[in-house]
This record gives sequence, structure tokens and C-alpha cells, in this order.
Amino acid sequence: MATAMKRNNYIDENQNRFIEQLLEWLAIPSISTLSEHKSDVGKAADWVRQRLAAIGFPEAKTITTEGHPLVYAEWLPHKNQPTLLIYGHYDVQPVDPIDEWKSPPFQPTIRDGNIFCRGASDDKAQIMLVLAAIEAWVKIDGALPINIKILLEGEEEAGGASIAKYVEEHPDQLCTDGVLICDTHMVHHEQPSLVTGLRGVLYTEIALTGAKTDLHSGSYGGVAPNPIHALCLLISRLKGEDGVIQIPELAAAIPTPSAAEKLFWQEDSLHVEEALRSEMGVEELVGEKEYPPLERIGLRPTLEVHGIRGGFTAEGAKTVIPAAAMAKVSLRLPADFDPNEVFGWLEKAVHQNIPAGYSVQVTNLHAGKGFYINPDNRYIRAAAEALELVYGKTPVFMREGGSIPIASLFDETLKAPVVLMGFGLPDDTIHAPNEKFSLQQFHKGMKTVADFLGRLKN
Amino acid sequence: MATAMKRNNYIDENQNRFIEQLLEWLAIPSISTLSEHKSDVGKAADWVRQRLAAIGFPEAKTITTEGHPLVYAEWLPHKNQPTLLIYGHYDVQPVDPIDEWKSPPFQPTIRDGNIFCRGASDDKAQIMLVLAAIEAWVKIDGALPINIKILLEGEEEAGGASIAKYVEEHPDQLCTDGVLICDTHMVHHEQPSLVTGLRGVLYTEIALTGAKTDLHSGSYGGVAPNPIHALCLLISRLKGEDGVIQIPELAAAIPTPSAAEKLFWQEDSLHVEEALRSEMGVEELVGEKEYPPLERIGLRPTLEVHGIRGGFTAEGAKTVIPAAAMAKVSLRLPADFDPNEVFGWLEKAVHQNIPAGYSVQVTNLHAGKGFYINPDNRYIRAAAEALELVYGKTPVFMREGGSIPIASLFDETLKAPVVLMGFGLPDDTIHAPNEKFSLQQFHKGMKTVADFLGRLKN
Repeated sequence: MATAMKRNNYIDENQNRFIEQLLEWLAIPSISTLSEHKSDVGKAADWVRQRLAAIGFPEAKTITTEGHPLVYAEWLPHKNQPTLLIYGHYDVQPVDPIDEWKSPPFQPTIRDGNIFCRGASDDKAQIMLVLAAIEAWVKIDGALPINIKILLEGEEEAGGASIAKYVEEHPDQLCTDGVLICDTHMVHHEQPSLVTGLRGVLYTEIALTGAKTDLHSGSYGGVAPNPIHALCLLISRLKGEDGVIQIPELAAAIPTPSAAEKLFWQEDSLHVEEALRSEMGVEELVGEKEYPPLERIGLRPTLEVHGIRGGFTAEGAKTVIPAAAMAKVSLRLPADFDPNEVFGWLEKAVHQNIPAGYSVQVTNLHAGKGFYINPDNRYIRAAAEALELVYGKTPVFMREGGSIPIASLFDETLKAPVVLMGFGLPDDTIHAPNEKFSLQQFHKGMKTVADFLGRLKN
Repeated sequence: MATAMKRNNYIDENQNRFIEQLLEWLAIPSISTLSEHKSDVGKAADWVRQRLAAIGFPEAKTITTEGHPLVYAEWLPHKNQPTLLIYGHYDVQPVDPIDEWKSPPFQPTIRDGNIFCRGASDDKAQIMLVLAAIEAWVKIDGALPINIKILLEGEEEAGGASIAKYVEEHPDQLCTDGVLICDTHMVHHEQPSLVTGLRGVLYTEIALTGAKTDLHSGSYGGVAPNPIHALCLLISRLKGEDGVIQIPELAAAIPTPSAAEKLFWQEDSLHVEEALRSEMGVEELVGEKEYPPLERIGLRPTLEVHGIRGGFTAEGAKTVIPAAAMAKVSLRLPADFDPNEVFGWLEKAVHQNIPAGYSVQVTNLHAGKGFYINPDNRYIRAAAEALELVYGKTPVFMREGGSIPIASLFDETLKAPVVLMGFGLPDDTIHAPNEKFSLQQFHKGMKTVADFLGRLKN
């Protein structure tokens, strides 16, 4: 029996153990943005460090940072084989609104062929399927086919400051021929895809103040500043119902897609629109209707309000005019924008559009540059071949709306091709209640990565 | 010594006891809108019932309702004297934002000649000064000068449904010649005033939904409905920066003030504007700048957003597009508007102005009609004379921005003149942190009410 088949058999036979291990890891609530979960984030780091050691990585360690720890392991047995750096993140998003979870967010539950748990798709299952593929090589072939470095972070959902610093300061240690990131999703469970572009992100908080104290609307309504009202005016001025962002410097610099992308997006437009409507449960899409949905998601900049808060919102009625209000506002940016420069443009637009009588403060919570990679290299070709073998269908190249700032940092710092091969599905509802990961994708993902690793061998 | 002077001496001598009693009552956190404070509201009712009995009211009882209890007492010793119905409310506003209180909201604290506590000005101290004035009559004269009925409610801050039902169902029991409400404030501590008009109020909740679940802004930003954004667009369309409410039916029906009011408001405009700026700590007033501030507060309708909530607003960053958002929005209305009719207009305007792609629900949380009373009657004259005697200055007649729905119900149901004689001050910050009541006002208020009661005697 060829060893490729033996590896696949090993994956089949050990699938339940791999799932059990995943469930154990998922149950650790490693929410990186909430300080009360700091020790859980540390536990999740330690858990995966032990898993790496158990697979056989001679050196698997946690690296202390100013934020959450990094996990690093390397196994470099071959002088004449290339090195692959594998990245993932073991931290997860917060869980609110918690009422909408059908099973508790950190009690991993299998239903209808999916594992439901916060962090399932983003990104724990995707890391685990890579580790299972590596284990299959070690157990069946007795060795890795190539050299492997693994770097996992615990701050991807919190801005990723620590890994950025680490990568910039340790280019020699991380020196590699290619990079694999399993943290994206496929177009469809029968249509494999590779991501070649990611938008950048700028995440800000806009805080407004009016009077020095909360006021009674009976006594002051009609003359008092109302920061909630001003915030609504401001947001409606930054982006209208047509979805157009009113930041002139940004609008002037939006890139045009390539002819091939344009064609693919337009051809696919009706199908994609229908799929998106169904995933979201809506009758129509919003936004810039003159652009096809995939261009709006993948290339056009977006401005979204993620949260808004002000005044009295509990049960009942309180006739208060609050002294303050705030909103969390992000911009997704095409690859060639510098998000810190865009922050200056946004700040200027906010100050120009805020009504008179208010103080406003815009804070840059985090910024990550976008990313575009030419798919014509052996790493992406190997990934495409592995996907085609396992899924029986040629993968498509996609630009994705999300941001993985680390991808562009690897690209710039390590000068090695980055492969974004993810096994999530569009309806995984990452960042939302009832996040899940498909067991079938878990299974196929392990086999795809095992095959991919073999193809990188000289 | 004339008995009037003896009553004043009695008030002076017992002032500290009256304050101690007030502090005891204030310490009961009778927040009517929060269900966890239900038993506290009951305790506050029982406390004042006992106080009424101690003064000598032969029948002082609590009346069970579907909401919080009413407290009722009557003492009708005279066949040939008029009857006065006295109204007040023993419930208080919620306390958030709690961090901004300099002393805990239910730990009554005396600083700089003021009692700081939630409910001090609105309305417990004002009820207590009336009860002290009555006690002075009983102790010094051995009898009330007139007949008195007292009706106190525990739902004024929660819509007042129970008292409205009770008044409508018991017009004979509450039958009276005049009504006294001490729940307003004076223009200034040296300028007594009587309120002859109150705006009505309509308090609503506007809830929007977009997609069936929260979504990741990376994957769906650009095509997904964002209910926070839609709510901002909606609110900015309902009222622009110019303060003009965009509800055509409402705009068409706004009354014009009398020539005398117009003159007073314009004459006083600069002084009032300066005082309002200083009270609020702002550099400029907002709203309809073509109208003088007192007209904007007292006569023009207002639309205010009291609270807004949606998405992620905790520490850090979460790139969610929420499935829902909501706002609490009220309208203050001139006396001749029917708030329930206005609710229909608002609902229509909301549906016309909501961007496409969202579901919206508008809920009428409570509605109270406004009120205007001609000051030319013996009850208001008696109040004006009592104020002039104690303060040494002729009181002015004011329309106030706040709403006391019960005032118009008394007017309509009992057909008796309503006297709105309040002793609060503009900087009492009712409904906001650090609510207070001036001890000097407490003292002068007792003497004013004692004098007022004597003037009602035939």
C-alpha cells in the first residue's frame, strides 16, 4: 500500500481521537479581548504546546509577550528540503449575544455533522487539522517530508500586536520558503478555493460628549446637546444609504479589479447574491448596488458600525439626555491602502462632519494592512493540486473580505509565498452566535494538508 | 403671637427632625422601572403611609394596583371649607451611570446646603415639605384649616398607568375644589414661579433587525444589512442638525405662543441662554435656533434619543455586524396634542424613513397628555401670594418642558384648578447623577405651603 493511502487510512482510523482532542481545546474559553479570560488564553496556549510536543516536535515552547503568549515549535530534519512556516491563532472572539447560542458557547456540541463552539472555525479546528496531517506523516512515514516551523498567536482577535513585533524582530528564526495559513473559508463545501487577497482593516472607537452631566429631557430637551443624536448624524454622513463612504481621500484611491476578476465576479453575481441572501436570511443585499457582491466584499472598502452605546437602554423608560455616546467603527481596506494613513483621513472626516456643540475623540484600536499575492508559485500550485485531489474539483482564486494582518507582514518580512488555504464554510457564523465547523471539512482538510505537505518535497 | 408665626417657629424648631425623616425615606431605593426594586417601592409606600398616620390622618392606606401601590389619606373635618387634593410620587428614577455619583445614590448625604440622593428633588423632599406644613397646622392650630385628600403614586417614572386608571374609576372619592402638585422647579432660588403649562410626552422604543444572525464584517461587510447604520440613518432623518422634527402632521399643528409669553421669552432670552449654558457646561445651545430657549423648552415639540444599543460595545474590538439594534426615542408635545395620535404619526414617519432591507418595530412605552391652565383662579392666586410672602418677590408664570401626565388627567376628570407649585431648582440634576434638593428650599417650601393652606380657608 502506498504511504499516501496509509496516511489517509491513519486519518480515518484516528478521526474520533482528533475530534475528542479538538473538543477538549475548544472548551477553553480563550477570549483574547476580555481581561477576565487572560488565564484561559494562557491555558489554550499551553494545551496546544503540549499537543505539538506529543506529535514529536523536539522544541515546542510558549513565548511570553506583553500580551498573550506565542506558541512556537520547529522540526527541521532535512538539509535539502524546503521549510514551511505554519501560522494559526488559538484565541477566539467574545460570545455575546449569549442568549442566541443554542448550546453554551464553550461546551462543544456535535449536531448535524458540525461541531458548534466559539472558535471552532476561527481558528482551532483549522489548526487541529494541520496538526493531524503532520501526525499522520510522523506515524506512517516516520518523518516529516519537509522542514516545519509552527507559530501560533493568541491575539488575532485583539489586534495581533505581539506577533507583529515578534516577526519583525525575529526574521532569521522564522526564515522560511513558504507560509501556510488555515484561517479562511471556501466558497462552498464542494467548491474548494484559495484566497489570494485580503482586505486590510482599521478598527476605531468614536466617542462623543455633550453636556457635563446627564440631563432631564423635560427640562433641557430642545436646547441640550444630545451625543446620541450627533453620533447618528455623524455616522449617516460618513456612509449614506447608498453604501458610499464619504471620505474623499479614500474614494479617490480605490483600485479597479483585474479584467479576469471582474468577469468572474459578474458571471457569478446572481448565484452569489442568492447564496448570500440565504446565508443572511434577508430579502435584499444592501450597499453599493452598482458593484457585484464579490467586489463589494472582496475589493471595495467598507465602513461598518460594530457597536453603539449611549444613555438608558434597560427595561422601561428614562427621560435622560446622556452626556456621552460612543460607537465602534471599522473600515475594511483594499490591499494597497495604509490603514494608519486612512485613520488620519477618517479622523478628518469625523471632525468635519460632527455637528456643532460636541467634543469628539477618535481612537485607533488596531490597524492591519491588506494583502494580495500572485498565485503563480509552487506553494499555491501544490495547495491547488491537493485540493483538487481531495475535492475532485479545480479550486478558484478568491479575494476575501476579512483581514489577516499577519499575512501581509509575513509577505513583507519573510519574502516567502503565503498560501491561504482555509476549510471554513460561509455559514460557519464566525464572530457570531452558534459558530461551527463541519466535520466533513475537518476530515477532508486533514487529508488535503497531508497531501499538500508531500507535494512540497523536492 | 399670631398662629402663623407660631407655625413658622414650629417649622424652624422641627426642621432637623423633618430632614432626618426625609433622609430615612430617601434611603429606600424605590426605582419603579426596575423589577428587582419592586419590594423597595412597596417599602417606600408603606413608609409614607405611616408618616401620614402619625400626622393624624384618620385614614391612611395603601391601595393595591396592577403595578405599584397608591397611598391615599383623607382628613375632612370641615363642612364649610374647601377640599384640596395633594398629589406626589414616591418612586424614583434609575441611578445609572452610577460611577458619576459623588456619594452613593441611596446614601443621602448633606453637602454645601443640599441633600444629595436619587429622588431628593423628584419628588420625595417636595412631598415631605407639604407633610411638614400640614403637621405644623395640626400641632399649632389643633386642626387643618381646610379639608385635605392626599394621593401618592409609585409609578410616575414608569408611565403612571395605575393612578390614571384609579382616578378615572374614582372621581367621586377624589372629588375636590383644587389640586396641589409639588413636583416642579422654580426659575431660580430667588425667583419663585408657578407652572401653568406642561408638555405631554410620548415615549417609544424603536427596534430594528437585519440579518437572521450576527455576521462577520470581513465576510459580509459591503452587502449585509447593518441595523445600527440603518438606525442612525433613521434618527438623522427624523430630526436633523437644525433640530426640526420631520413628522409633517406634527409640524403642521404646532401652536403659537401668546403675545405675553412671546415677549417674556424674548426679553429673557439672553439671560436664560447664559444660565442654560452654565448649567449644562456647554459653549452653545443646540436645536431650533430661530426660537428663544424658553419656547424651545416649554412650547416647541422635541424629539430626543434617550438610549441606543446595538452590537459589541465592551472593551476591545469585535468585527461583528449585529442582527439587531434599538433606540429609546421620546417626543415632548405641546398641551393640545394627543400623544397617542402622535404615536401613529411617528410610526408612519419611521416606516417611511427606514432604509430598505430592515424590519422595524415601534412600541409605545407610555404616553401622557400635556396641560395648560389659565392662572386666573383663587388657588393659583393663593399660591402666588404665599410665594411672594416667603420669597419677597412676585412669582412668574412658566410653561415647563417636563411632563406630568397626571396634571392633565386631574384637570379633565376632577374639573378643579391645578396648582403646580414646585420648590426644585434648575440645577437639581433630576434623572441624572448627583440629584439634590436645597435645604433652604426645603425650609422655605414648608413655610410657603403652610401659608398657602391658610389662604384657602373661606
